[in-house]
This record gives sequence, C-alpha cells and structure tokens, in this order.
Amino acid sequence: MSNGGGGAGASSSTHLLDLLEEPIPGVGTYDDFHTIDWVREKCKDRERHRKINSKKKESAWEFTKSLYDAWSGWLVVTLTGLASGALAGVIDIVADWLNDLKEGVCLSAMWFNHEQCCWDSNETTFAERDKCPQWKTWAELILGQAEGPGSYIMNYFMFTFWALSFAFLAVSLVKVFAPYACGSGIPEIKTILSGFIIRGYLGKWTLMIKTITLVLAVASGLSLGKEGPLVHVACCCGNIFSYLFPKYSKNEAKKREVLSAASAAGVSVAFGAPIGGVLFSLEEVSYYFPLKTLWRSFFAALVAAFVLRSINPFGNSRLVLFYVEYHTPWYLFELFPFILLGVFGGLWGSTRFGKYPVLEVITVAAITAIVAFPNPYTRQNTSELIKELFTDCGPLESSQLCQYRSQMNGSQAYPAGSDAAATPGVYSAMWQLSLALVFKIIMTIFTFGLKVPSGLFIPSMAIGAIAGRIVGIAVEQLAYYHHDWFLFREWCEVGADCITPGLYAMVGAAACLGGVTRMTVSLVVIVFELTGGLEYIVPLMAAVMTSKWVGDAFGREGIYEAHIRLNGYPFLDAKEEFTHTTLAREVMRPWGNDPPLAVLTQDDMTLAELQNIISQTSCNGFPVIVSKESQRLVGFALRRDITIAIENARRKQEGIMLNSRVYFTQHAPTLPADSPRPLKLRSILDMSPFTVTDHTPMEIVVDIFRKLGLRQCLVTHNGRLLGIITKKDILRHMAQMANQDPESIMFN
Amino acid sequence: MSNGGGGAGASSSTHLLDLLEEPIPGVGTYDDFHTIDWVREKCKDRERHRKINSKKKESAWEFTKSLYDAWSGWLVVTLTGLASGALAGVIDIVADWLNDLKEGVCLSAMWFNHEQCCWDSNETTFAERDKCPQWKTWAELILGQAEGPGSYIMNYFMFTFWALSFAFLAVSLVKVFAPYACGSGIPEIKTILSGFIIRGYLGKWTLMIKTITLVLAVASGLSLGKEGPLVHVACCCGNIFSYLFPKYSKNEAKKREVLSAASAAGVSVAFGAPIGGVLFSLEEVSYYFPLKTLWRSFFAALVAAFVLRSINPFGNSRLVLFYVEYHTPWYLFELFPFILLGVFGGLWGSTRFGKYPVLEVITVAAITAIVAFPNPYTRQNTSELIKELFTDCGPLESSQLCQYRSQMNGSQAYPAGSDAAATPGVYSAMWQLSLALVFKIIMTIFTFGLKVPSGLFIPSMAIGAIAGRIVGIAVEQLAYYHHDWFLFREWCEVGADCITPGLYAMVGAAACLGGVTRMTVSLVVIVFELTGGLEYIVPLMAAVMTSKWVGDAFGREGIYEAHIRLNGYPFLDAKEEFTHTTLAREVMRPWGNDPPLAVLTQDDMTLAELQNIISQTSCNGFPVIVSKESQRLVGFALRRDITIAIENARRKQEGIMLNSRVYFTQHAPTLPADSPRPLKLRSILDMSPFTVTDHTPMEIVVDIFRKLGLRQCLVTHNGRLLGIITKKDILRHMAQMANQDPESIMFN
Repeated sequence: MSNGGGGAGASSSTHLLDLLEEPIPGVGTYDDFHTIDWVREKCKDRERHRKINSKKKESAWEFTKSLYDAWSGWLVVTLTGLASGALAGVIDIVADWLNDLKEGVCLSAMWFNHEQCCWDSNETTFAERDKCPQWKTWAELILGQAEGPGSYIMNYFMFTFWALSFAFLAVSLVKVFAPYACGSGIPEIKTILSGFIIRGYLGKWTLMIKTITLVLAVASGLSLGKEGPLVHVACCCGNIFSYLFPKYSKNEAKKREVLSAASAAGVSVAFGAPIGGVLFSLEEVSYYFPLKTLWRSFFAALVAAFVLRSINPFGNSRLVLFYVEYHTPWYLFELFPFILLGVFGGLWGSTRFGKYPVLEVITVAAITAIVAFPNPYTRQNTSELIKELFTDCGPLESSQLCQYRSQMNGSQAYPAGSDAAATPGVYSAMWQLSLALVFKIIMTIFTFGLKVPSGLFIPSMAIGAIAGRIVGIAVEQLAYYHHDWFLFREWCEVGADCITPGLYAMVGAAACLGGVTRMTVSLVVIVFELTGGLEYIVPLMAAVMTSKWVGDAFGREGIYEAHIRLNGYPFLDAKEEFTHTTLAREVMRPWGNDPPLAVLTQDDMTLAELQNIISQTSCNGFPVIVSKESQRLVGFALRRDITIAIENARRKQEGIMLNSRVYFTQHAPTLPADSPRPLKLRSILDMSPFTVTDHTPMEIVVDIFRKLGLRQCLVTHNGRLLGIITKKDILRHMAQMANQDPESIMFN
Repeated sequence: MSNGGGGAGASSSTHLLDLLEEPIPGVGTYDDFHTIDWVREKCKDRERHRKINSKKKESAWEFTKSLYDAWSGWLVVTLTGLASGALAGVIDIVADWLNDLKEGVCLSAMWFNHEQCCWDSNETTFAERDKCPQWKTWAELILGQAEGPGSYIMNYFMFTFWALSFAFLAVSLVKVFAPYACGSGIPEIKTILSGFIIRGYLGKWTLMIKTITLVLAVASGLSLGKEGPLVHVACCCGNIFSYLFPKYSKNEAKKREVLSAASAAGVSVAFGAPIGGVLFSLEEVSYYFPLKTLWRSFFAALVAAFVLRSINPFGNSRLVLFYVEYHTPWYLFELFPFILLGVFGGLWGSTRFGKYPVLEVITVAAITAIVAFPNPYTRQNTSELIKELFTDCGPLESSQLCQYRSQMNGSQAYPAGSDAAATPGVYSAMWQLSLALVFKIIMTIFTFGLKVPSGLFIPSMAIGAIAGRIVGIAVEQLAYYHHDWFLFREWCEVGADCITPGLYAMVGAAACLGGVTRMTVSLVVIVFELTGGLEYIVPLMAAVMTSKWVGDAFGREGIYEAHIRLNGYPFLDAKEEFTHTTLAREVMRPWGNDPPLAVLTQDDMTLAELQNIISQTSCNGFPVIVSKESQRLVGFALRRDITIAIENARRKQEGIMLNSRVYFTQHAPTLPADSPRPLKLRSILDMSPFTVTDHTPMEIVVDIFRKLGLRQCLVTHNGRLLGIITKKDILRHMAQMANQDPESIMFN
C-alpha cells in the first residue's frame, strides 16, 4: 500500500519547536510523479514571507530584497504574458507562410506569404486580391503554365508532398526530442495544477519542440488546431520564468499560481479573448485559484493579448482572427435551429475520441492532403474557413457562399442579400460544405491522438461552423421562399433578409466546442469577446447549454477529464459530486486481510527496527504513535524525510549506530548508561496530521481532500489510530463505485 | 464560552446508522444571529438529492418531481433575474420623474419627466431640447413668470422643499417599517453569504421599503447612489423566490448559492455589465462559489440585463447609462496623469467613512439642496453628471464643457475641438466643477451612514469623474499651448486634439471606485463593458491598481470590510492572510484559569446530570467522550439538538425520568433491573467532528475554517481531547493579534 507522505505545517512547526536545529537539506521536496501537499507548501511560503518581513527592517539591501520579492509575482506574469504573446504571433506568421508554401512561392520575396506577396501589387482589385504576378503556384514555376490538367496535377502533387514532409518532420521531432510535446497538453496541465508533479512536462525542451512542431503540424493541413497547444506553450513559459524567482521555483504551490495565470494568457492569445482566458483558467484548468491569482491572470492575459496585437499577425489590427459584425437582430423562432445546433454539438462532444488505435501519422497526413485538395473548403486552412463561414454576406464578399441574386445583378444595396435568393453558386457551395463536414468529422476523429501537437478547439469549431452555416442558409432560403408562412410572417417582410447564416455558423461552432470541452461561461465569454455584442449571447447560451446537457447525457465527462482518466492521472475532479454513502472506515487501509498498518512508536525503537520497517514497506509515510498498546496518534513522518534525516545524521553526528534509540519526542527517553547516542527525529515529524473519525461520510472526506489539497488523512476511532486514507485510495474507491477498473490509477 | 454547534454530516450518519429512528423535527435548524455549518448543510442536500434519485424510478409523478427539482435551480435564478431587472427599471424611471419634479411639472402629462415631456414638441432643436411649453417650472406655474430673481428664488425654494420632503419621507419609512433597509446592504450580504443568519434582512418588507425609499433618497438629491442598494434589492428577490423551492428554502447553503447569483444580477442591472456582475459576485461578495453557481449567476445577470434593456429606462436602447465611444487613442505619456488619478482614488478610498456621528437626515438634505441648487453640476442628478463628464466633446455636445473655439465659430468639423483652445465657458465650467468636487466630497462623507438606502458607488464615481475631467482639460490645454514641448511633440501635431478629457473622467471614476471598494478585476471588467473597448483597459488597470495600492497603504481593508468590522459581524475574510505563528493550543478554550471544558460521557450520565450541565453552561455544543479518565473523543452534540431531543422523548416515550440513563452508544449499557428506561441520543450525535492537534499552526486552522466553513473544531493531544476552537475564538484571536478590541465581535 502506498499512503502519500507530506503533512501539514511540518516546516512551520519545525520553525517553532526546533529553532536550534538547522533544516536538513532535501527535506520537503518531492519525487517525480508524486502529489504535492498543498497545506505544507502554503505553510512553507508563509514561513518564507515571515522571514523576509522580519529581516526587512534590518538594512536597505534586505528592504530592496523584500520589495523585489513582493513584486516578483507581477514580474513573472508580465514576462509570461510577453513571451506567450510573442510566441503566439511568431507561430501564427510562420504557420501561415508554411501553409501558403504548399501552393506556391512569392518570387519577389520568399518570406512573404500569399497575401503579403500580393499586397502592394497595383493591378489588384479587391475581388481578385489573391492573384498577382509575383505569386507563382508550383505549376507555374515548374511547368511554366498556370492552367490545364497538368498544372492541376502538379499543384496537387506539391501540395501533398509539402503536407507529408511537414507532418513527417513534426512527428519525428516530437518522437526524438520531446515526447511530452504531443497532444494539446491541457489534460496534463489540469493534472499538474491539481498538484501532480511531471518533471520536464513544462520544460524548455518541450517548449522549443512544441513550438516548432506545432507550426509544422498546423501547416501540414492535418485536422488539428493550435489553440490548445498554445495553452501548453504559455504554461511552459510560465514554468521557465518562475525559475528566475526563488519564491516560485522553490514552492510547488506558488508555482502553480503562475501556471494558472499562464494558461489564461494562453487562451487569451489563442482566441484574442483576455477575459475569456481568465474564466477558462478559472472554470476549466485551475485547481487552487485565490483572488490574487485572478487579478494576475487577468494581467497576464492582457499583456499577452496586447503583444499579439502589436505583432498583428492577421494584418487586421484586431486581437481576434474571427472578428465579425452582424447587422440584423435574431428572432425568437430562430432559437429552434440554434437548439438543434446545440444538440449536434452535444453529439459531437460525446464522440469517444482516442478510442481508435493511433494510426501512423504519415498515412493520416497523406489521406488528409489527398482528399482535402480538390475541395476548396478543406484545402484552405481551418481558421480561414471558420472566418469565411462566420462572416455575414456584405457587398464586398467575393465568397461563393454569398452569390445571392442581389450580388449577381451587382446591386450594392446594403444589407447585402436583400434579394436573398440563392444562386447555383450557393447550392454548389452547400454541396462542398457537406462533403467538407463529413471529411472533417472523420479526419478529426482519426487525427486526435496522433503523436503531434494537436488541439481540438479549431477542428470542433470548424465542424460546428460548417453545420451551422448549412442550417443557416437552409433557414434563410426557407424564409425567403415561404415568407408568408406563420413563423416568418411577423418577422421577415418580403425582400429584406431576416436571417444571418454567419450567426448560425458561430452558434454551431460554440455548440461543438462546448460539447467537446463542456465549458460554459468561459466559452460564452470567449465568443462574446469575438463578436463584441451582447445581442447574440442568448442564442449562444441556448446552444451551449443544450450541447452541454446532451453531452452530459451521453457521458458526464468532457474531453479533458476523459483523457485524464485514460492516462490514469491521480486527478480529483472538483466538478463531479461524490454521491455515495460510504464511510471512511470502508475506504481506509488496512482492509480485512491486509497486513497491519506500518506505524512507528515515538520513543522505543532502535535505528535498526526503523530501517527494517522502511525497507519492508513501500508506503510513503508512517504514522507515529505513543505506544503499540494505546495506539494514540502523535504525528506523521515521511519515508523520504526519514531516510534523508538518517543519512544526514550518519554523516554529521558521531556515535549513531544500528542499536541507537530513535525518538520523536521533545526530550530523549531515559536510556541505560551503556547505550549508544540516540537519534532525534522530531524535526521531520509532522505534529499536525489531518485526522477523521471512521464514521465520517466519504463525501466529507472527499470534500476535505479537494478543498485542502491533502495527500493523506489518518482515520481514528475514539482517539485510537485505525488506518489511513490517501488520495489514491479515494480515487480507487471512486473508480470502484463507478464500476471502472480501480487499478487504472497508475501514479502517486 | 460559546462554542458554535453543528457538526459534519450529522444527518448523513444518522441516515446510515439509525434507519429505524425517524428524524426529530427541529433538529438541524439554526437560531437567528448564528453561523451555519456548511459541511452539514451540504450533507443534508446530498442526502435529499439521493432520496429523490432513488425514488425517481418509482413512478411518473416521482420522476416529474425529480425533474422539477433538477430545474428549480435554473427557475429560481431566472425569476430572480426577471424581478431584479424589472425593479431596477421601475426604480430608474420613478427616480428620474421625482428628480425632475423638483424643478417643474409636465402639464400635458403629469407622469412624464422633463425629457419625455419635451420629446415630441415640434419646436425642439437638438441644442435646446429641454425647453418646451408643456414643461413648466414651479416659478412659471405659481408666479407665472419664467425669468427674474423672484422666479429664481421660487424655483430654489421648491427645489429645497421637494428634496426635504423626499428625504423626510424616506427616512421615516425606513425608521418605521424596515430598519434593515438603510445603507447599501452589501456588507451584510457579504456576512450572510459567509454563513451568518440575519432573519428578515432579505425579507419582503425590506425589499418593499428599500425599493420605495431608495427612489425617494435618490430623488432627494442626497449625495448617494442606487447601485449598491440594487444589489440588496436583487438579493431580497433571490431570497424570496428561493422560498418557492424546498431545495433552497430548507437548506441554508443552497440558498446562499441563489443569493450569489442574485448579487451578480444586482450589479448587472446597476451598471448594465453582466460579466462584471458575475465577477463582482465572485471577487467581492461570495464566500462559497462552486462552478454551477458561476454559470447560474451568469444566467441571472444576463436575464436581468435583458429585462432592464427591454424596459429601456434611459431612452437610449443601451444597457448602460454611461455608454461612451472615444475616437482618439491614448498615449504613453498620459499614463502619468492616469496614475495621479489612481493616487487620488486611493486617498479617497482611505477616507474613514462613518467615523463621524450620523447627523440628522433632514439637516444634511437641507444643506445638500441649498448648496446644490446654484451650481448646475451639483443640481443635476449624479448619474447625468457622470454621463456628461464621460462623454467626449462631439459637434452635437451643447454642454458648457465643450465650448471650444472650434464649436464657437460653428465649425462642425469632426473630431470636435480640433481647435482645442478653451473658451471662457470652459474655464467657468472648470470653476464650477472644482466647487462641485469639494461639495461632493464633503457631502458624501456626511451622507454615508445616514439611515436611508445609500450606495457609495455613484458618489465615488462622480468625485473621480470630476477630478478626472479637470485633470483632463488641464492636460489638454497644456498640450494645446505647448504642443512643441518634448512630451507632446511626438504625439500631438498642431490643431489635432490628442487628449480626450472624457477618458480622464472615466479613469478617475474607476480609480475612486476601486479605492473605496478595493475591487480589481470586476471593476475593470465593469468599466470595460461600459466602454466596450479593449483599448482603454491599460489606463484603467494602471489607475485601479495604483488606487488599490495607495488605499492598502493607508489601511488594508475596503469599505465593506471596515463596515463589517464596525458592526462586529463574525466574518472570516478569505482575502486577508493569517500571518502569525501561534498554535492551536494557544487559541483553544479552556485557557489557563477558565472552568474546565464541559463534556458529556457516552453512557454513564443520567438525564438529570445532562440537564444540569446544559443549564449551567452557555455553550452551543458539547463534546462526547468515552470516559472522564481516557478523555477519548467520541463525537459532538449540539445544545439545541439535545434539548429538542429530550423534549421530544418526554412527549413520545413513556418512563423517561430524571434518573434514567442517557447514552450515545449504539447499544444501551447494562443497567440494574430497577433502573428506569434509558434515553438513546445517538441520532443527534455527530460522530465525525473535526479535530486538529494542539500543535497545528493557527494558519492551517484558519484555512480549514475558511475552506470548509466550520463553526467549531475540537483540539486533541495524542488522541486525548484538550479543548475546542470556535469561529468566534478565531476572530477574537485575530482581533487580539491586530491589537483591536477582541470583544468587538458581538454575534455568534
């Protein structure tokens, strides 16, 4: 059995009771894949804070140090924000360039992407702004001809070639240098924020490789998004910068405050939504979120957003890629299609991703590229697609989706589509969209779980947006041709357009995103920040809530929780209620036929006996009791601390031998004259272990573990030590209650 | 000594162990001015939930009931949102009408306010839109003349007369019907949300009277705002509606979830900022804020906002009164004046309100009215003033503040003030503003604490806005006359206006509001929702943070915390850190020369002894131990529950007499044959009391109390019961540590 170690206030009580003893180096640190003890970490930090405050008055230097310490929090989040914003900008630009490279090159300047290349070419009209002599497709370059089947095949081939090489490069870089860089990373970040330690997951290597491979993966045209990984990238920045400040590098709990702020900054740059980012960090990823962190997260998110905007990767001086403005209100009867979209989103969200064996990346990339090329909606990069689907049909829209009769006969009357009869162009677009929808759904399901940096945000939004736009156009045409039908009569007068298909696309996108992640407030706020109008919040909420309920009906957990469970991380979800009526005594170890609980007595053991117990058991800590008879609890000692303390004593103190007495009490026990020097271990004894009675309902125990972030808790009956409950025991118990395999919890 | 009662999971363990015994009526309720036990309340709710779920399958009716139960949460927040929005709209309209009544009446329709009255009068040009024949000032009505000293005096007199009568009516209504209706109510709501019970504070009487008197108080022209009280009004709605649903009316913890949502709705309608409202509820008032509540608060805030907008009290179809659009960006050098405004705000925030004896309302009202009338900026109602100060000078602005040379020579060139030389008009306006500033500051300080519904939001914003506008105009003129100075040279080219005085006003308002309330994120988000532009968030944050730091430097606590401390509510602030190094044994009772802790033994007391102990002690609960010798803790029993249980037994069971044995064990102790029937009290015994060791640092104990919402916690040493720590003990200890009078904590 492995009962997690740690213990409340060890360091603090140490400070109080053993001022003479200097702290033993190494005591109070953690091994990899172990859970931190929040209470102890927070005590350590308060301790540090007290030290600094007491020293503050002594000298100007100490005062400066205290100031630096007080400001380091703001400093680290600022740095994190700056770095995340900059990285996001670079990623956007490079990915954009690589993506265009699949189609051609800019002769005038290699490093320009298609848009920049044709920007200042004088013969560019707005309509055909993406045609200019400087930009050569591969066919024009190699075969010297722009049209004809030959050039088409050549472009087709080059497109696939580049896509494959990008994908190959990405996957091999990940495999060789940083296996942690694959996936979106959000589930792991949730686990880390909940107090788990995964060394190197937020390290500089992961950061470097993830940034590079993310660009490649996005450019390769695989059905994945960069938004999720951006959160991971931001958290890496936060983690790396936190090493500049001992306040954060030396304290796991404080470090996690920085990470919370970092994840807010990540979402902020991913969607250009600072407030949404903060709420995402609060609602979705964070575990311990004090108000100070809220404020700093907000700051980090803002800094990141502003850096990104000043880099201005999208050319429109906006924070967000999909900035939209709608000119018509929504009508009550539209709630019905919106809710339908919500249902669709919920169904999409309840898809069991990652169930299928992870296929070879190259195959997926090849299929994606080959199938994607012929269809314009799958060829262009997904963000562009979403943008096009979101935008309302204005007079300047050259998109095929907007070929309404009004545009055709060149009327520039605004609002566009006032004669909202669709032309064959729209119908063919609908067909292509439907194909794109099927394609995206299949490819996304197979792409998820590939060993490359991949997020589900953008693909989900794309799927939702496509579905939404299709529904939107359908409703629009319905309203146009049956404007005298009772539903439309009071809303839509003839000729005027009363339906905004772009809005449907946005609602669909939100619904799918909500279905996958089960986000609620943060999602609505993010989309609200995209559109910047309160008008459309009601449709959004209707859709998002529907999708959440439908999704929950098919399985309560979102993609992240599912992922966490699949990987068996020891994550105690604060969202799901513990609804069973079991008592502590039914969960605690030892059970019926387990070996009895390994305990230490406070003053009548020899060093040999102690080492014997340590070597024979595998648990991370031992309760210390008065005597075997009374079973009265004195405290709790960590395995790791004990071993360190013994070695330390062996090195530093003479006369410590196997038969010397080990004692945890304040004063040494009275010993026979000839006995060797005793070993005092009180300094590593946690004299305030958490205890519950055996009658405590598990729901309360779970509550305590969640809210205080415990690793273990001792169980007593009428003051007698009975057993122990660790975080792992609780998770195992919950798994049993949910009829899952209790052994699926690997770590801790 | 009074150790709070309650105990974790009493009901739940009851359910488990005494399925045969029916619950005793009255057990598990609270007295007035007592603190609730969050853990127990949450257990009760889970219990209820389990019952419903288990019954669900039985019949269609049960299933419907379970559905209703599941939806009641959404229902109650919807109702709350609707009610708060409607009430806010009504209050706005009536207050506006009453306020105009002080100056005159609309002959065509009495119930029109000035603006509505002159709305459809054909001879109205935009500039003089507030002059029309239908609208008669009192002088015109009574004396029949519009001009001249006589009419001025008559108007002056009527103005004062109405103000006084409104004030008098308000204060007497409050005094007679609902003393709880005075003040803003936010401190009390904070306390209630933290688990304190104040019966009637959120009742229907308070709601009714507060709504009426709020209108009167605002109309009386006293220097107070309606925003704070709106939160109280919304919470009253939430509380009242929660009585429709047993799920919430019967459970104090669940009820507080509704109240959190209600306070969000209140701020949402007060400022037209739904997201800001949610964050306000999260950051400022709420204590226990699960994610479900976040989502529902958001929903309530939205509903309220939409109702308010469809009522549309401000005539502009906007959510917010002060909607502004600025057309010039801000420049880096402006950060300096912004930070100055922040300092001003911090100083304003550190004003010790309520220190001065509460003066007679009528006097204050009289002074206010008499001094206010001559100065246009103090005569008009404060919201209007703030709006005028916020707005940028456009060509249509008739305000005296915008009489720049450009306007004067009638150039309609936009942006206005392109020739930004101020005319004498502006200078006289500046003078009047300075006087208004002094007046507002003094009056606000004296108005605060009057026994009428009064908020500090609007007065503080007004003071900040005035100061900001003054600074803004000063900087503007500076930049205009010294545009070649190094600071302005690179930013302001000649003729163009590079300074927006309105922005300064807004920054100043935010700074003062931040200084008073010490809000951070929520405040920035609220103002962000007012302006709807990310551009100005950096100035806002700079100012708000400065004001917070300056305010904290003069005293850590915001106005609400100060108010709570003054009234001695038992409020354990989650924000302030406990930084001392005391141990549990130093705080627990009994102390050195206290009487020993009153305890019950589990099976060897007679009813007489029990009643004796209860009558002799005043504490709310008693630890139950195995025996006086071993001092081993068994559980905890509430005084209230014991008395109820004894009476109940006396009524229901025969043979209970004074010498019958009382036992808390599962099985009755073996008794001599002739002894009377024993009394079993196990069902009211909480067998999972929280315990800490005497060595636990107080910082951890405080943490546990905050996070789990405990009322008391037992202290043990090596498994032996030593003493008890209650919430009140902790507050007293903290007061001592802060060198305050420990007896200032009245309640609990």
